[in-house]
Amino acid sequence: MRIIGIDPGSLITGYGIVEPIDGRPCHVASGRVMAPAGVPFNGRLRTIYSRLSEVVAHHRPEVMAVEDLFFARNVKTALKLGHVRGVAMLAGLNAGLPIAEYSPLAVKQALVGYGRAQKEQVQEMVRLLLRLEFLPEPDTADALAVAVCHLHSSQGEGLLCGRLRR
Amino acid sequence: MRIIGIDPGSLITGYGIVEPIDGRPCHVASGRVMAPAGVPFNGRLRTIYSRLSEVVAHHRPEVMAVEDLFFARNVKTALKLGHVRGVAMLAGLNAGLPIAEYSPLAVKQALVGYGRAQKEQVQEMVRLLLRLEFLPEPDTADALAVAVCHLHSSQGEGLLCGRLRR
Repeated sequence: MRIIGIDPGSLITGYGIVEPIDGRPCHVASGRVMAPAGVPFNGRLRTIYSRLSEVVAHHRPEVMAVEDLFFARNVKTALKLGHVRGVAMLAGLNAGLPIAEYSPLAVKQALVGYGRAQKEQVQEMVRLLLRLEFLPEPDTADALAVAVCHLHSSQGEGLLCGRLRR
Repeated sequence: MRIIGIDPGSLITGYGIVEPIDGRPCHVASGRVMAPAGVPFNGRLRTIYSRLSEVVAHHRPEVMAVEDLFFARNVKTALKLGHVRGVAMLAGLNAGLPIAEYSPLAVKQALVGYGRAQKEQVQEMVRLLLRLEFLPEPDTADALAVAVCHLHSSQGEGLLCGRLRR
């Protein structure tokens, strides 16, 4: 099962695709969607949707995994993040993918075994788990982490850390 | 200039299309996008995007007008509304429409001349202004109201109540 994980952000949206080979999670592709500097918010929404749609069409994942967002600094930030998360998920939904959602705590627990892990620990653990020759950027690492979390969860490794919705 | 106004909501999203004829705003079409009961949030996002995309393709408006959302009951509500507003705007952006945003206060002021107008006053004023033979539902009225606000604003009726972003 090939999984695309998404870390939505209004400036940088990370994505990471993994699939199991002989039961071990393997890195297929990952990257960041960034709108050129100065592009207004609406333009960025369009870029995020179209770029992620291309990635989905190219790599053909079977499921999309996204972090649940239960908190944000304030209402305005939440609203903005909601826009980005909505169009990112739509890129999956329009390709017929089910969306799996996991809390940030669950993702960290699944990866590092500790819900309050630092950003650097997640990057390092993703690098080790996927045997990458590079340290992934924080947003790419987060996207790969949620994809790995879904893989663990669906392989029934006792990490039933989220829920699947169609 | 044909304008589509949108009132995004996670259960009901209203849309309203107006255009000026001899300088007066006229009703072209309006309606509500509602997902069937029991459809989960992700399914609703997809329905909102695809239905609004159809409406845009059919009626070919030249601009989309949406209310700015600066407030919400709480962060969770803001996040949810953000998703809906994001995919609704994307239906316009993907058709190449510029998006005009207006504060709720500005819309009410443009329509009723009073920023704190009640829902019923907006419905009644929209009915009168567009010479409708029916009282539009609240969400449809709000969508038509923001479209009329943009029309006023772009006709330079001293109601520079918003901003246009591409």
